[in-house]
Amino acid sequence: MASNSFGKIFRITTFGESHGPAIGVIVDGVPANLALVESDIQFELDRRRPGQSKVTTQRKETDTVEIISGIFEGKTTGAPIAMLIRNEDQRSKDYAEFKDLFRPGHADYTYWAKYDKRDYRGGGRASGRETACRVAAGTIAKKILREHKIYIVAYTLAVGEIYAKKKDFSVIEKNMVRAPDLEAAEQMIAKVEEARKDCDSLGGIVEAVVHGCPPGLGEPIYDKLNARLAYALMSIGAIRGIEFGVGFKAAAMRGSQHNDKFYMDGNRVRTYTNNAGGILGGIANGEDIILRVAVKPASSIAQKQETISKDGLSAIIEVKGRHDPCICPRVVPVVEAMIALTLIDFLLLHKAMQR
Amino acid sequence: MASNSFGKIFRITTFGESHGPAIGVIVDGVPANLALVESDIQFELDRRRPGQSKVTTQRKETDTVEIISGIFEGKTTGAPIAMLIRNEDQRSKDYAEFKDLFRPGHADYTYWAKYDKRDYRGGGRASGRETACRVAAGTIAKKILREHKIYIVAYTLAVGEIYAKKKDFSVIEKNMVRAPDLEAAEQMIAKVEEARKDCDSLGGIVEAVVHGCPPGLGEPIYDKLNARLAYALMSIGAIRGIEFGVGFKAAAMRGSQHNDKFYMDGNRVRTYTNNAGGILGGIANGEDIILRVAVKPASSIAQKQETISKDGLSAIIEVKGRHDPCICPRVVPVVEAMIALTLIDFLLLHKAMQR
Amino acid sequence: MASNSFGKIFRITTFGESHGPAIGVIVDGVPANLALVESDIQFELDRRRPGQSKVTTQRKETDTVEIISGIFEGKTTGAPIAMLIRNEDQRSKDYAEFKDLFRPGHADYTYWAKYDKRDYRGGGRASGRETACRVAAGTIAKKILREHKIYIVAYTLAVGEIYAKKKDFSVIEKNMVRAPDLEAAEQMIAKVEEARKDCDSLGGIVEAVVHGCPPGLGEPIYDKLNARLAYALMSIGAIRGIEFGVGFKAAAMRGSQHNDKFYMDGNRVRTYTNNAGGILGGIANGEDIILRVAVKPASSIAQKQETISKDGLSAIIEVKGRHDPCICPRVVPVVEAMIALTLIDFLLLHKAMQR
Amino acid sequence: MASNSFGKIFRITTFGESHGPAIGVIVDGVPANLALVESDIQFELDRRRPGQSKVTTQRKETDTVEIISGIFEGKTTGAPIAMLIRNEDQRSKDYAEFKDLFRPGHADYTYWAKYDKRDYRGGGRASGRETACRVAAGTIAKKILREHKIYIVAYTLAVGEIYAKKKDFSVIEKNMVRAPDLEAAEQMIAKVEEARKDCDSLGGIVEAVVHGCPPGLGEPIYDKLNARLAYALMSIGAIRGIEFGVGFKAAAMRGSQHNDKFYMDGNRVRTYTNNAGGILGGIANGEDIILRVAVKPASSIAQKQETISKDGLSAIIEVKGRHDPCICPRVVPVVEAMIALTLIDFLLLHKAMQR
Repeated sequence: MASNSFGKIFRITTFGESHGPAIGVIVDGVPANLALVESDIQFELDRRRPGQSKVTTQRKETDTVEIISGIFEGKTTGAPIAMLIRNEDQRSKDYAEFKDLFRPGHADYTYWAKYDKRDYRGGGRASGRETACRVAAGTIAKKILREHKIYIVAYTLAVGEIYAKKKDFSVIEKNMVRAPDLEAAEQMIAKVEEARKDCDSLGGIVEAVVHGCPPGLGEPIYDKLNARLAYALMSIGAIRGIEFGVGFKAAAMRGSQHNDKFYMDGNRVRTYTNNAGGILGGIANGEDIILRVAVKPASSIAQKQETISKDGLSAIIEVKGRHDPCICPRVVPVVEAMIALTLIDFLLLHKAMQR
Repeated sequence: MASNSFGKIFRITTFGESHGPAIGVIVDGVPANLALVESDIQFELDRRRPGQSKVTTQRKETDTVEIISGIFEGKTTGAPIAMLIRNEDQRSKDYAEFKDLFRPGHADYTYWAKYDKRDYRGGGRASGRETACRVAAGTIAKKILREHKIYIVAYTLAVGEIYAKKKDFSVIEKNMVRAPDLEAAEQMIAKVEEARKDCDSLGGIVEAVVHGCPPGLGEPIYDKLNARLAYALMSIGAIRGIEFGVGFKAAAMRGSQHNDKFYMDGNRVRTYTNNAGGILGGIANGEDIILRVAVKPASSIAQKQETISKDGLSAIIEVKGRHDPCICPRVVPVVEAMIALTLIDFLLLHKAMQR
Repeated sequence: MASNSFGKIFRITTFGESHGPAIGVIVDGVPANLALVESDIQFELDRRRPGQSKVTTQRKETDTVEIISGIFEGKTTGAPIAMLIRNEDQRSKDYAEFKDLFRPGHADYTYWAKYDKRDYRGGGRASGRETACRVAAGTIAKKILREHKIYIVAYTLAVGEIYAKKKDFSVIEKNMVRAPDLEAAEQMIAKVEEARKDCDSLGGIVEAVVHGCPPGLGEPIYDKLNARLAYALMSIGAIRGIEFGVGFKAAAMRGSQHNDKFYMDGNRVRTYTNNAGGILGGIANGEDIILRVAVKPASSIAQKQETISKDGLSAIIEVKGRHDPCICPRVVPVVEAMIALTLIDFLLLHKAMQR
Repeated sequence: MASNSFGKIFRITTFGESHGPAIGVIVDGVPANLALVESDIQFELDRRRPGQSKVTTQRKETDTVEIISGIFEGKTTGAPIAMLIRNEDQRSKDYAEFKDLFRPGHADYTYWAKYDKRDYRGGGRASGRETACRVAAGTIAKKILREHKIYIVAYTLAVGEIYAKKKDFSVIEKNMVRAPDLEAAEQMIAKVEEARKDCDSLGGIVEAVVHGCPPGLGEPIYDKLNARLAYALMSIGAIRGIEFGVGFKAAAMRGSQHNDKFYMDGNRVRTYTNNAGGILGGIANGEDIILRVAVKPASSIAQKQETISKDGLSAIIEVKGRHDPCICPRVVPVVEAMIALTLIDFLLLHKAMQR
């Protein structure tokens, strides 16, 4: 029940607090003989790290990864891969003044209620910083998936009420919000700037597409592919909801509209529509897997907010620090990582069960 | 990785096909000395069984539960509780004619792609009938939760575009769609009837509320309470999405609106709003847990639909049988059961970790 | 933590008490398309069942297996396989008179201490009868292993102080004690008869050999092949110890004697000796896996024994019933089953990790 | 299936190779508010580290532990505790010359057969050095167990054929072999010296006693206390066998001798004898848990040995390095650690299941 691990055959375990010496991750169950170097990992970490653009927090963390074990002569050995990311830009004193106060929207109160002992410095274990470990581990999973021609892409579909109207994947990494639509991206950035000026933050929607997932991946009954993906993605702190294919729109549809009809495309079974989002009965049907997650507006805002102290006294809190006005662009690589970590487990299991 | 089990400390394992001799469930990890009789289970099964009203399928299954083990002199012994539900009204021949065809929206194709061997009779293992086992097991979890004053209620929030406008829990079991609003219920029933006449089906939204969940329940980092609930609920075949608190609406909110401010209510920490849906950082904060799931329109409809055979030939399929025009009312007890099975695991773990 | 399950990818869950309506097992994670009929299972169950010879208990249980799910048209479907074995010859009243007494050597007291509620009829859940479920499930594992040319054989190496001097596997099933030496078998049988006449029981040693295990099976660090086998075999109630290769004799050896030197046998890496019992660093090296388990004398004996009641009063207990004077011959198929269930998990995992 | 983790509720994950930068362990599932400082850990590590006496290897490793996470203001926070132990005295070049040779008795060949990629420096992941991580983690488990008045002590019962004749626990830490008998210890030390002079090594037996284990700990059916202990201890590389209570001697006993008769000692249920070693039906009965493990003679010996290369060529290998002539004294703290890690899981689960 130890809960800092994710996955079964390919399993990660993360540790570390935002203001301790380091955070890190152990990746166990990696097949041997996979070429892997630190720069593979660093590339993805750089997509998540703070300070990468004006729409993200201005904290300076290089998030430099150090591989401690599991690699020999440039390849995985089958042993667990330990990776460390040192914490650098820790201004713990930023937090000292409200060490007894519960920041609204954060896990301060619930950790205190649960453990009666709390590392108050920047959220400690509850900090979004933990997701860097997911990204590091996810890179390894992605690499194996790519060898099997399974590709994952995530992007910011909406910021506030501004939606991407196009889905041009080639521009995602070319704009600060990681939207697949440059025009919409500009409007989104303007909205984020506006929120920042108001000492506020803004939510959004991140969408992800998995291309190349072979039919048959996923397991009945409880480890349905969508169930495991929902579990994986809802474990990201900022996520408030998840939907697959048409998602909540299914509620207002009739079966005759919603059922995806089958046809043959050469030798391949296809469906005309993809309302199911690529998954039937918890098992991939070979169509693109499509899902969306609702990202809440970041809880850290530079405004005065009403709250209480752990002694039950009313208080006003003003979290100065350096915050993300919209975390969607930084959530994108985390979403990809969690999808990759979910799929790799199913892929390995799938191989196990072939006769 | 065996995937027909759910839970860790309190763990269920289900088995059986819709057209085999029986379905069943083993519940392991039940504390000893809990009073339990078959009628406790039967009560909940009757809420899920087919044929209970005109808005559900007219199949006749009494879904009578038989407890095989784990109870002695009316109380649990700590041994696994095995429960069998015999299949009665199996018209396997209803299915023989399309044994080689893939029903749109169903898992026929994906099971075939995965296993290359398929019990085609009524979905076999993929049948919604498996959820009766969840309800049976969930009853035991609910009973223990009630002893801890944790109460779960689910209801149909919407059928198609008709939403309940009131939340009067006392009427939920008094209308055929299990809506908390009798007036809306009537409109919903009319909509379902309409769909049935059109040989079609209709989706909806089921909402659930957990009252009395103690602050501190849930685990960082991966087994967040919302992550495990999402996993539990997305494993129900008909669910297309899940959201907590304000859910997808969070995308368009600002942090200053979305953050739930704390205050003291006597000795109890409360929040003025409950946008987070009772969970912060994956841990219950003591407010009601509120979640919604999108229920797709049932895939079985009595219309002609285009499809293909397993040999890749085009075909027209017409699934006669007796279908649910809207499965929301039958999903309600399943949602409750899956929430109960999730919470019980956290509750037992919570006790384990107290010093 | 539910503890009535064994295995990870290929996972069994057992249930049922010796004096309830039935015992049974769910086998999850069985690859699809394996031919399987009830007679496959029955064959192995018959090797374990009571009443098969004069050296076993005279209880009459046919141990007839009924497959409830997971098989369609003679083949596995990938769905969980549920098997039921009805209890027939239950003389519950044999046990009523000492329902408040703790039988020495049995789990009566510890179950009562743990659960404060106890099905006293014949050991309830703690009965050796549960091992029939292991044998049923193990048959499926064995069948898959045989397809991979992995063969498991177990036999009675010693009864009391009588040891088999030859290892002629062809005679194992041809004598009542399942010894690989007909001459020794006769002496063993005489010893068992002697014990029975004295209203007593006798211990022994069961040895097992796995032939054909491919080099590479097993996992560092914690799931070493020998560690998982020890776990599997020590979970059989009557086992008091386990050793691999030279086992406890290693304590008195020097490294120069104990190290198995390598040589090439054609293309195959071999060792001149097999002191390690076929496992190095927790991983099979391709030599035969050899292990021995110490079997305690059955605790049920038809003598008067001093004990106490659950109220703490001194008492004399005389367990009449029909007992096994030596359980070695019936432990043999259980040992084989547990080895098979352990190996299958490693075999499936091994396939998962191949690139 | 990732296999570098041990435990369920209280779960450790280890990583690192003997000749990489560091080894380490993550301990997840530690209750909050336990006082813990590095010196607690260091104390136990010092009992295991090399170079502590003339009967152990002369390698110089201070095995200094660094706590990276999970502790705040001297107490556990409920977050995972990461501990690093830097590798210092790595003479990797000692190993370069036989990088293509398989050392007899070691896991060189099986790792190569399994992974086709091998860190040949000092055993890499298969090195006994990994057990330092177990000791570090075990210290935390021990600390919690002591709070519950559960005490674990292990000691060298035999070296070669020299057995301790007394069991004076007060002298265990006062002699180099950790025997509970100073006179026997001297003879043992002489025997070890003799083996060392012959460039050889010697096996032995380590015994452990758990005092204070409450009746009821342990779980039927598969997670029997003895089954989990056997799994835990057999995962230590040097162990060849394990037995509980009378162990293999049970084979030659009759039931009337072997059954431990119950009596009342005041309010406490006791048995006159303890042949079962404190466990009945997989559950502690309150008597001392007694077990013994067979420790093989260390495989690294400074003699010329026949072997083969990975290309299948015959070769002579002479492993110079600095070796342990008898590893029993260093196995002692590892045995204690693995017992502690096993018991803590059962203890936490036990609390979970109390009503």
